[in-house]
Amino acid sequence: MVNSMGFEGSEKKLEVMLVPGHSSLRKRGREFWNGIVEASEASILSTISNQHCDAFLLSESSLFVWDDRFVMITCGQTQLINSLVLFCESYNREDFKSLIFQRKNEYFSHLQKSTFESDRKKLELLFPGHTYQIGQLDGHHNLLFHMEGELCPDADDCTSELLMYHMEGEAVSVFRREGASLESVRGLLDLAGLFPEFKTDDHLFEPWGYSLNGIFEDRYITFHVTPEQHSSYISFETNLKLEEHSELFTKILEVFQPQSFDIVHFHERELPSFGERYQLAGGTNDRLECGYPIKFGHFIKRQLNLGKALRL
Amino acid sequence: MVNSMGFEGSEKKLEVMLVPGHSSLRKRGREFWNGIVEASEASILSTISNQHCDAFLLSESSLFVWDDRFVMITCGQTQLINSLVLFCESYNREDFKSLIFQRKNEYFSHLQKSTFESDRKKLELLFPGHTYQIGQLDGHHNLLFHMEGELCPDADDCTSELLMYHMEGEAVSVFRREGASLESVRGLLDLAGLFPEFKTDDHLFEPWGYSLNGIFEDRYITFHVTPEQHSSYISFETNLKLEEHSELFTKILEVFQPQSFDIVHFHERELPSFGERYQLAGGTNDRLECGYPIKFGHFIKRQLNLGKALRL
Repeated sequence: MVNSMGFEGSEKKLEVMLVPGHSSLRKRGREFWNGIVEASEASILSTISNQHCDAFLLSESSLFVWDDRFVMITCGQTQLINSLVLFCESYNREDFKSLIFQRKNEYFSHLQKSTFESDRKKLELLFPGHTYQIGQLDGHHNLLFHMEGELCPDADDCTSELLMYHMEGEAVSVFRREGASLESVRGLLDLAGLFPEFKTDDHLFEPWGYSLNGIFEDRYITFHVTPEQHSSYISFETNLKLEEHSELFTKILEVFQPQSFDIVHFHERELPSFGERYQLAGGTNDRLECGYPIKFGHFIKRQLNLGKALRL
Repeated sequence: MVNSMGFEGSEKKLEVMLVPGHSSLRKRGREFWNGIVEASEASILSTISNQHCDAFLLSESSLFVWDDRFVMITCGQTQLINSLVLFCESYNREDFKSLIFQRKNEYFSHLQKSTFESDRKKLELLFPGHTYQIGQLDGHHNLLFHMEGELCPDADDCTSELLMYHMEGEAVSVFRREGASLESVRGLLDLAGLFPEFKTDDHLFEPWGYSLNGIFEDRYITFHVTPEQHSSYISFETNLKLEEHSELFTKILEVFQPQSFDIVHFHERELPSFGERYQLAGGTNDRLECGYPIKFGHFIKRQLNLGKALRL
């Protein structure tokens, strides 16, 4: 999965909500979800559960399953669209309350097994819907499809992504080495301080790379760290309401000290500001047809140094 | 050549200098250069000449030929590496004083017929050399190979690229329409004011797009305008010494009013600053092994607005 230039950390994401009255998705059991994950060419490494949610740590990212919905995130060269196609063999269009399929722009799009355009064709065979480009084509951006139909999202139905590029400081020495220890990683992340109530499940990959899932009641967090030497990428995603956790992103940024980062907000009020340290360098403020307000911001360090060219 | 998301404006570039004492490259004649251009899957549209240089306007960008060197720039899905391979059937490694092969990161790398990595393998079969990544992998960047061997570049052996993204203002209405007129384009560019001494040759493409070559003595200029609606891209390149033309980039920026731009300098002293309008948002300052100081800067507008998501 690692080409000579590095591992593809950029994620694809699928979020499905069923209409009320369906039997529980959690009750489909491990074999069903194994199949869904394998359709993407990923596999389940481990699982944690609470009364609301099953959280699966995958060989390439994460899957969270609630009774009435699931969120699946995959990276590398996975084909997430195929998981949806398989899921649709068990459900009809009328069963879906919401479907959102999203792809972040890739580092190595020429090494992907499918393009967003080919994924979109499969989506449009299954659902009428709308397609968006969020962010500009020459910069960081997301391509997003959602099925037709307007939702009235609940006040606490929000998702936020924090996508960080080029970590610096202590995180480099902790993550960017073979044989990192889970203790040093957990200590650096200050999991106990940041997420005291969350049950967590984490994994270090060979030769490097780190994933973490956490759940508390119906809330989730997930970290994926791709510590490639010259193009490190760290994603954090949660459905915590940031209004109630206003310091969370700032604290995570202090851990990874990225040179730049993106924020994607579904149904959060505003893009935060980051004072003297980072400035907004571009973004999007819109409302999807399905009803989610969406905000995308690309932030860069205020103080920058011209770097050296990279010898390949 | 135009996929549903737009034309690939990003360029590949090949610069070859022969050792002194060779018979003139210009004397190889039209048939030879036709073959070189066709090897990239491009074709020659028109030609201008002066006592130093032949300038060929191509179906995808430009070729400039002097007695002892040539610069070839191609965009779209061309395979510039194949032009070099063909050229090398007529010349030995000892004939080369300098070889630089460069690829800008592409909008649609998955639609390219070759990758920089596969190009590099062909290059390394022909020449020992050095490979660089200039700019960061998640942002605008250039991949560059040059052959082994140190040059002592002459003081006037400099090249500058100005790569502009998302034009605004009058340029939009002039370029981004079918049936644009050469008169309106030339007026907008103020060719007579900016380049009074240059002989020029320009072409409007269907349904849109514009290329211009200009030569004066041994100096060249070249513009390539890809006015795609949501990802317009304009490149300008010259071997004029910008120290002696300090206002040139500022004036071109006034024409296209891009939301952001990159500058690549080979052997120019410093990256310019652009006062209140644009700020440097990242870059590179280094010296290639072959002896060229190289500077790369990514500039963004100081005043920015959050845009709408693009409906695809």
